[in-house]
Amino acid sequence: MSAVKIAIAGASGYGGEELLRLLSGHEGVEIVAVTSRSAAGSALGEMYPRFLGTRYGGLKFSASTAEAMVAAGAEIAVLALPHGLAHEFAVPLLAAGLRVIDRSADFRIRDAAVFEEFYGGKHQAPELLAESVYGLPEIYRDEIKAARLVASPGCYPTSMLLPLIPLLRAGAVSAEGIAVSSMSGVSGAGRKAEVAYSFCETTGSLRPYGVPKHRHLAEVEQELSLAAGSGVRISFTPHLVPVSRGILTTIYAPLAGKAEAVGAALEAAYAREPFVRLLSGSQFPDTKNVVGTNFIDIAWRPDPRTGRVVLMSAEDNLVKGAAGQAIQSLNLMAGCRETDGLL
Amino acid sequence: MSAVKIAIAGASGYGGEELLRLLSGHEGVEIVAVTSRSAAGSALGEMYPRFLGTRYGGLKFSASTAEAMVAAGAEIAVLALPHGLAHEFAVPLLAAGLRVIDRSADFRIRDAAVFEEFYGGKHQAPELLAESVYGLPEIYRDEIKAARLVASPGCYPTSMLLPLIPLLRAGAVSAEGIAVSSMSGVSGAGRKAEVAYSFCETTGSLRPYGVPKHRHLAEVEQELSLAAGSGVRISFTPHLVPVSRGILTTIYAPLAGKAEAVGAALEAAYAREPFVRLLSGSQFPDTKNVVGTNFIDIAWRPDPRTGRVVLMSAEDNLVKGAAGQAIQSLNLMAGCRETDGLL
Amino acid sequence: MSAVKIAIAGASGYGGEELLRLLSGHEGVEIVAVTSRSAAGSALGEMYPRFLGTRYGGLKFSASTAEAMVAAGAEIAVLALPHGLAHEFAVPLLAAGLRVIDRSADFRIRDAAVFEEFYGGKHQAPELLAESVYGLPEIYRDEIKAARLVASPGCYPTSMLLPLIPLLRAGAVSAEGIAVSSMSGVSGAGRKAEVAYSFCETTGSLRPYGVPKHRHLAEVEQELSLAAGSGVRISFTPHLVPVSRGILTTIYAPLAGKAEAVGAALEAAYAREPFVRLLSGSQFPDTKNVVGTNFIDIAWRPDPRTGRVVLMSAEDNLVKGAAGQAIQSLNLMAGCRETDGLL
Amino acid sequence: MSAVKIAIAGASGYGGEELLRLLSGHEGVEIVAVTSRSAAGSALGEMYPRFLGTRYGGLKFSASTAEAMVAAGAEIAVLALPHGLAHEFAVPLLAAGLRVIDRSADFRIRDAAVFEEFYGGKHQAPELLAESVYGLPEIYRDEIKAARLVASPGCYPTSMLLPLIPLLRAGAVSAEGIAVSSMSGVSGAGRKAEVAYSFCETTGSLRPYGVPKHRHLAEVEQELSLAAGSGVRISFTPHLVPVSRGILTTIYAPLAGKAEAVGAALEAAYAREPFVRLLSGSQFPDTKNVVGTNFIDIAWRPDPRTGRVVLMSAEDNLVKGAAGQAIQSLNLMAGCRETDGLL
Repeated sequence: MSAVKIAIAGASGYGGEELLRLLSGHEGVEIVAVTSRSAAGSALGEMYPRFLGTRYGGLKFSASTAEAMVAAGAEIAVLALPHGLAHEFAVPLLAAGLRVIDRSADFRIRDAAVFEEFYGGKHQAPELLAESVYGLPEIYRDEIKAARLVASPGCYPTSMLLPLIPLLRAGAVSAEGIAVSSMSGVSGAGRKAEVAYSFCETTGSLRPYGVPKHRHLAEVEQELSLAAGSGVRISFTPHLVPVSRGILTTIYAPLAGKAEAVGAALEAAYAREPFVRLLSGSQFPDTKNVVGTNFIDIAWRPDPRTGRVVLMSAEDNLVKGAAGQAIQSLNLMAGCRETDGLL
Repeated sequence: MSAVKIAIAGASGYGGEELLRLLSGHEGVEIVAVTSRSAAGSALGEMYPRFLGTRYGGLKFSASTAEAMVAAGAEIAVLALPHGLAHEFAVPLLAAGLRVIDRSADFRIRDAAVFEEFYGGKHQAPELLAESVYGLPEIYRDEIKAARLVASPGCYPTSMLLPLIPLLRAGAVSAEGIAVSSMSGVSGAGRKAEVAYSFCETTGSLRPYGVPKHRHLAEVEQELSLAAGSGVRISFTPHLVPVSRGILTTIYAPLAGKAEAVGAALEAAYAREPFVRLLSGSQFPDTKNVVGTNFIDIAWRPDPRTGRVVLMSAEDNLVKGAAGQAIQSLNLMAGCRETDGLL
Repeated sequence: MSAVKIAIAGASGYGGEELLRLLSGHEGVEIVAVTSRSAAGSALGEMYPRFLGTRYGGLKFSASTAEAMVAAGAEIAVLALPHGLAHEFAVPLLAAGLRVIDRSADFRIRDAAVFEEFYGGKHQAPELLAESVYGLPEIYRDEIKAARLVASPGCYPTSMLLPLIPLLRAGAVSAEGIAVSSMSGVSGAGRKAEVAYSFCETTGSLRPYGVPKHRHLAEVEQELSLAAGSGVRISFTPHLVPVSRGILTTIYAPLAGKAEAVGAALEAAYAREPFVRLLSGSQFPDTKNVVGTNFIDIAWRPDPRTGRVVLMSAEDNLVKGAAGQAIQSLNLMAGCRETDGLL
Repeated sequence: MSAVKIAIAGASGYGGEELLRLLSGHEGVEIVAVTSRSAAGSALGEMYPRFLGTRYGGLKFSASTAEAMVAAGAEIAVLALPHGLAHEFAVPLLAAGLRVIDRSADFRIRDAAVFEEFYGGKHQAPELLAESVYGLPEIYRDEIKAARLVASPGCYPTSMLLPLIPLLRAGAVSAEGIAVSSMSGVSGAGRKAEVAYSFCETTGSLRPYGVPKHRHLAEVEQELSLAAGSGVRISFTPHLVPVSRGILTTIYAPLAGKAEAVGAALEAAYAREPFVRLLSGSQFPDTKNVVGTNFIDIAWRPDPRTGRVVLMSAEDNLVKGAAGQAIQSLNLMAGCRETDGLL
């Protein structure tokens, strides 16, 4: 089988860089173009010396246009662009016959009005929202295989949805009263020249932000509502902590039945999933066990004192929360094994 | 006024070291003895080179006994010992006429049965529990001034109680349905030779622990129940994160009335407190603004979508959460200004 | 004695912030003005929430002009400005009768041609170079007391000069063949919005820079040559490492006589200095013992295998290497005890 | 071609763990046994949850004996044991017909007297020293291919020898007057339960150690002397810095001829090496570009002011400095491509 040809837009961010790192070891994929507004004309190894001497070290960034991606012969395009820009690429790429995996929020929200409430501005390609598939492979595997347009989930949403969806589907937890606290590494903010993300301002710093209405709530509540069969509203507090990579999420959910139903629902959903690890015994998730990998580790503790279950998950925000999860979708779309390049 | 003479037991831990650092700059206090089982006979500056050339650099650790503290002429003893050891010192020290500030949990819980449920083993000096004052100066200032025995609060409890007590007293939040997520720096685990706290195992690591029934719940629920006038049960998840010092706590509490009542209750309680800073506008607490100081920073955000308020606090676990708060009590007991040595 | 009135220009950088932190505890000094181009009009506590509720939290930044500093009634001005800007302030401030402590390199180099070789551009006030005193208190204490203009040393130079000057003066080491490796925390680069100093690009990073001709060589070789009585040329490599604060310097110097002469010369120079700690026995300097303090720790190890001595020093680049050392000079100029506000 | 069967002794240390991580992706190698004194009987994934769900997650640690390794059918044994223990395994393993790659210092030093000077105690298998090959593949590739016993180099030595050997061989630098400063991540100290390596004692800490006679000098000076054709003595100072992984080494060497000879010699030696990257232009080595990889990055700057060249290298102490370099040797011995599992 010949390798599938892909192009990556916005490859100079942390998520794009991680796509390149992971795909360097994926024999079934050939990257034919990488675009970057800031780095066009430079070779990957010049911009990011860690790639010198590796498979794509000599690949040159092309201008950041859909045309360049089509001209390179790509079959599938991965968009690692800021919110609000993806539609400029997705529309012409789809028109040119490519399939598209989008890492932005632009096609994650089915209801354009909700998108506009959380992200501001008018949605520029609402006609694609009905077609777009929310790219959580553990939940929408078959739809992804057949999709033209996949909206790959956000990093925080992945860490909440995978623990909660099976529980809401099974009625093991209540749809009301859920609260979530997450902490994320600084790479989640992107490669930014801002004092707020400088070493000195972050290294000894623990801080919440985006309270009480972080943008990721839009996609999280959409998917939780679908799982619950009714509208779900949650509290969510993200925190910035001094690690480069990793998200640790802690969820408080009211038990809706017996405590044992929690483990049963998670086991039923994930026992055969290659990238979801349910921790047993006294183990807790720890980001150091997942950084650099596509795993998400999940543990849970029923608390009879409060009638809640505490769910905890750990993932690498740049892998399972971004590039790795996108490669799972890519593998599904291209007919590769889902674990290729990832395990 | 001559300086009050104090002795510190267990001064070789991080909390004890911080007491020594802060008291080096306190003219109204003279440290006459420091005890340490492991360091007896050594000078402070030998054990901790950062103290070389400072006020107490030449002070020698004495054997870890109550007798040594009495013999040194101390008027007030500060105990920075592990849980379960404090009563061995407190009983003879009180008998010898000293006043005692205890940094362990031994005298924080009014009900010996609750202590035994959370800490295990039989309480060794239950007769002192009725007399002991819970050493939160903002809540129990007058009682501390007159106390013989002060049980200085734990680091996590301080970060929850100061935001929540005024709200429960004022009826601004409900006593049911409170959930708390905290993250703490590694010094909270003490100066320990364990692989789990080594640099390599913690630097890239975010992890929960002690779920769902951390020991600190005993004192937290006791004090919240007193504030609410009824029994309070909360969910609490502590997390270990890669900073040396600092606790960031995020609290979800159901609003019991108008959202404005939250700010009003906090302002009424803390507007004149020297060490509680209520953050206004768009500011969030950040541990980097409090590390090394005795401040606790508090912010709040009502969330009409969920009917909750999100409360956030930041403190230095070794200062406001330990040594600094103990010095506030010491100042109150000794008749110094409450801010001496701290501001 | 009434407090001496001082004004600080460029107080919004890390060095300026540290001056404010240290002077908050100095009763003999009153800050009457702080200037900042970017923060004029804001209160210190608004810009830097860590100062809320402290002595200078309400102080407002004024416009960044010499006039504002004169108008505020300052007797001594401390300039914490980038290289090449200090003369714009120093000339009018001196003309208005103020004394000046400059934290930039502008007045450190006696020979304007050397300044221009290392810093580029024409020196704008060469007539002041003869008068300016190099502000190393341990070396130029009497000159500083009487100075109108003090050029406070750079952070790296302090860490090399204090170990080496007594050895060159005593002839214990050779003036030829000295090599120096230093590593510095990221605050040394200033409060900068650059990707290169972002958390993700620095936290796992060890890197040299500025090889082989770092600007600080100008003042280092000037002072070493004065100590040796002949021209000294050294190799110097600075490295950026992932700490906020601290410089660790390692020096290789050929022994010129007996190995014992090294310790003897250092003891003779520093035994009575309050801020230089000569480490004995098996101790090595460690930045964690000096961060936040004005100490410099020095150790040495003769190596008979190579005929060299290895000298090692640790300091806080923002205190002994910057703000603290400037306060030593300020105390000397103002007639305070040299340790006021620092110990 | 069937996979070569290997066994790893001491697999529960950081170096052993890294071997397991890298070999999980190496199709030409099959691990048939891992031994650990502390973990015998447990599965790899139980001890190190990061391996759960990966190729070797279910592999059980066997008792730490040579017999267990032979019984498992291993053809090549990799020893990741503390110094002084390797001979207990190497002698019986060689006798049983296995080939051995040793990661300790036991077989690196050709002269048993030098070994005993630097490591103490009597060498237990001096008869093997003449046969053992020093496992630097870029220098001893052909010897490694044919070796029964390979002594894989230390982490610091690799970072010095690769830059210096070609220069000494070519006469581009002098054999006298070389000085080296290195800084290493904390994993270099091993997985240790010691307060000195705890997070709180290392995170803000920069410190030298092992001055002036670190053990690694024995192998470094041996190999430099072979390259120079005469005895070489160098100064070497290692430093501990707060990163998990990575070594940055800075070398001062007197130029012996024209400055251009340095680059020419390095280009001649390494232009075709897959794992040595010579940085051009203004680039400096940075550990963040090599961590997790088997690359060593090298740059150089002649300094006409001092007549020296400054050489700088960066490597991952656990990969190119340990596990990766051992796999290069393994590949050479087993007839795989040298880059298999590494690129």
